[in-house]
Amino acid sequence: MTYPLLNRLRVVESSAFIAAPLAGLTLAQFGADVIRVDMIGGGIDYMRMPRMPQAGGKGRSLYWTALNKGKRSIAVDLRKPEGRELVQALATAPGPDAGVLLTNIGTPWLAHEALAARRADMISCTIQGNGDGSTAVDYTVNCATGYPAVTGGGSRERPVNHVLPAWDIACAYQAAFAVVAAVEQRRRTGAGAELKLALSDMAFTMLSHLGLLAEAELLQQERASIGNHLYGAFGRDFGTLDGGRLMVAAISAGQWKALVEACGIAGQVAALEQRTGLNLGDEADRFACREAIAELVAPWFATRTQAEAEGLLEARKVCWGRYSTVGELLAGDPRVSLANPVFERVATPGIGEHLAAGAAVRVASMEREATLPAALLGTHTDQVLHEVLGLDGAAVGWLHDAGVVAGPERDPTAGAGSGAGACARA
Amino acid sequence: MTYPLLNRLRVVESSAFIAAPLAGLTLAQFGADVIRVDMIGGGIDYMRMPRMPQAGGKGRSLYWTALNKGKRSIAVDLRKPEGRELVQALATAPGPDAGVLLTNIGTPWLAHEALAARRADMISCTIQGNGDGSTAVDYTVNCATGYPAVTGGGSRERPVNHVLPAWDIACAYQAAFAVVAAVEQRRRTGAGAELKLALSDMAFTMLSHLGLLAEAELLQQERASIGNHLYGAFGRDFGTLDGGRLMVAAISAGQWKALVEACGIAGQVAALEQRTGLNLGDEADRFACREAIAELVAPWFATRTQAEAEGLLEARKVCWGRYSTVGELLAGDPRVSLANPVFERVATPGIGEHLAAGAAVRVASMEREATLPAALLGTHTDQVLHEVLGLDGAAVGWLHDAGVVAGPERDPTAGAGSGAGACARA
Repeated sequence: MTYPLLNRLRVVESSAFIAAPLAGLTLAQFGADVIRVDMIGGGIDYMRMPRMPQAGGKGRSLYWTALNKGKRSIAVDLRKPEGRELVQALATAPGPDAGVLLTNIGTPWLAHEALAARRADMISCTIQGNGDGSTAVDYTVNCATGYPAVTGGGSRERPVNHVLPAWDIACAYQAAFAVVAAVEQRRRTGAGAELKLALSDMAFTMLSHLGLLAEAELLQQERASIGNHLYGAFGRDFGTLDGGRLMVAAISAGQWKALVEACGIAGQVAALEQRTGLNLGDEADRFACREAIAELVAPWFATRTQAEAEGLLEARKVCWGRYSTVGELLAGDPRVSLANPVFERVATPGIGEHLAAGAAVRVASMEREATLPAALLGTHTDQVLHEVLGLDGAAVGWLHDAGVVAGPERDPTAGAGSGAGACARA
Repeated sequence: MTYPLLNRLRVVESSAFIAAPLAGLTLAQFGADVIRVDMIGGGIDYMRMPRMPQAGGKGRSLYWTALNKGKRSIAVDLRKPEGRELVQALATAPGPDAGVLLTNIGTPWLAHEALAARRADMISCTIQGNGDGSTAVDYTVNCATGYPAVTGGGSRERPVNHVLPAWDIACAYQAAFAVVAAVEQRRRTGAGAELKLALSDMAFTMLSHLGLLAEAELLQQERASIGNHLYGAFGRDFGTLDGGRLMVAAISAGQWKALVEACGIAGQVAALEQRTGLNLGDEADRFACREAIAELVAPWFATRTQAEAEGLLEARKVCWGRYSTVGELLAGDPRVSLANPVFERVATPGIGEHLAAGAAVRVASMEREATLPAALLGTHTDQVLHEVLGLDGAAVGWLHDAGVVAGPERDPTAGAGSGAGACARA
């Protein structure tokens, strides 16, 4: 579902990979009209894995279509001056709800200065690798944050990369936030804004916001890798009798009390406190005693099936979660199904019908709109040129003939010569 | 640095832990007046580790102070009806730039309905664990996403938790985005909004947005754990002669060409292509051949020092990054220093001076304001009661006497009986 909160704010997106496209998706799912501009035939992220099996394994990308749900797609030859002129014109088109560019492609012809010369109150948001404009990706930033040295029993010498592209995700949402803040300011003051956000700044500022930088500077200490334990309180994963795996967290005093009660270890905990002189009601003391606590808790899980353990944890209001794979989640967790209003089924051209998510935020009492799938590349080329730039059929035809723009690509799942689309072209 | 983009938009934050406080920090660093409300003596996150060594290891929390930079702090007895009345009054105070509540505390007296009864155009944003209001934290959500089963050589049976609280971070930025979008809408239409965002929805929608849900549903495949390799192209970490460790990524064709040239392996790559019949210019073929490629690349790193390797990679414009700990980053990476405008030195009361980050976003041509540190708890109690609610000295005095509110806590670094603060109280 999407919400019409942003009132068809028009955002032109010239992007690739995750951060900028996810920022555009976020805006689109809050009701913005996001026009994604791509090179004819697709940009460098157009065939990212996983791909559908059609066309010898070169069917549509499930990655690209996931990140471009509900955007309009236009295909332009970005190497040609006429193509660049079109994109500049789209980004700077008049109107209070237009004049916003979102990009991670640091090309001079899309620089803020060039656009602001055409529209003084232009808002542009450029996502960079590093703040100096040099290249960096999530993986080459994350390695520097210190996280791989403390993840999964890793070390400085044998770091463990996490798989989630967390900095890309953070960057995307931060960029969407910054764009809307700038739009809000423009509505108040009339002023545009040039916004820049580097992936490495996203990661390194987070080290400050979570206290790790001050810890390293003021306490002169490096965190050790503590495997699957959580830092600063008690929490870890435990295996069940039947091979299941559950995560429990006892961060607050209430959560700790619930865990102790559920596992029936109040006596052992009291003995542990007496032996160590620590107060396990204090989160820091729980953290200090984490291995001893885990030894008390583990047998409880090891002698129960996953279903039994879950039922008992739930009854005691323990904070717990089940480990699952994506397939298991999809097969068995109602939070990832039509029972959850943030999910619905969409039919993506060239792919088929599948479960897909709208905005994670729910807006009470606002009418939801359906989440639209990612269009075939170039689906909206003619519509956008006509609607936004006012080009007539002859002008649009000339742009096609000159190879400056292209219409919808062929649906790889459509049979040759069959189907309505093919008939309409004949 | 912070930017006055949000024009002193007033946000009342009643929160704990990461997601809601980080959302508030994000708003504050874009110029909002964020008033964090805490229980007298501090809420459940007030002593989160790491802590300063004063007071027998119970000095100020570097975690709490990191997440609450630049907010105003008021201390209220939230168990008392008069305390709750004050917070409701603050959240619903009149003015076009007020009337915004940010919370992750699902208490009835802060429910949207209760506030909207006092201010019809109220905007509230509630961060939840699960959408049904049940408890979940980052760790108990992340285990269900499938990521721990594929991180760091982990498996379904031996999952590896990543350490970064990525879903909390994503939630925070998404919430800040949603709040500003609602403010923008209110400025246009006059309507308020009730926003809800569940941590689990944040995580599970991301599985859709990154294509993993569609992959599991349509291709019926689960991703395997591939250690430190990146998915879908080529990228991995390599050790250097002197015990250093570097990450390289060859996602785009240009990045791949640069890596092949830097390592001087063009001939071996051509031979590998001939042997396998694959085209390593295609990212999916690189992914299929990742182990063989890593074997070609590894000796180049193993026979060079880290400094030599970095110089050569940089000269060829390879996409690379250095592994470091937080301490190493702080000691040696100019991106985490005053050379980077997103960082500055702040003096946090009760802690001292340290490097801290402002907004990661840079706004060209807008005057930056200094990043303010986290205040001592209750520092702004009297100021806020007077300024926002118009209470006079007598009324504020009564609230203190009745134990409904409290002023600034004692600075744990101030000597007993010394210092201006102590004198003023005498």
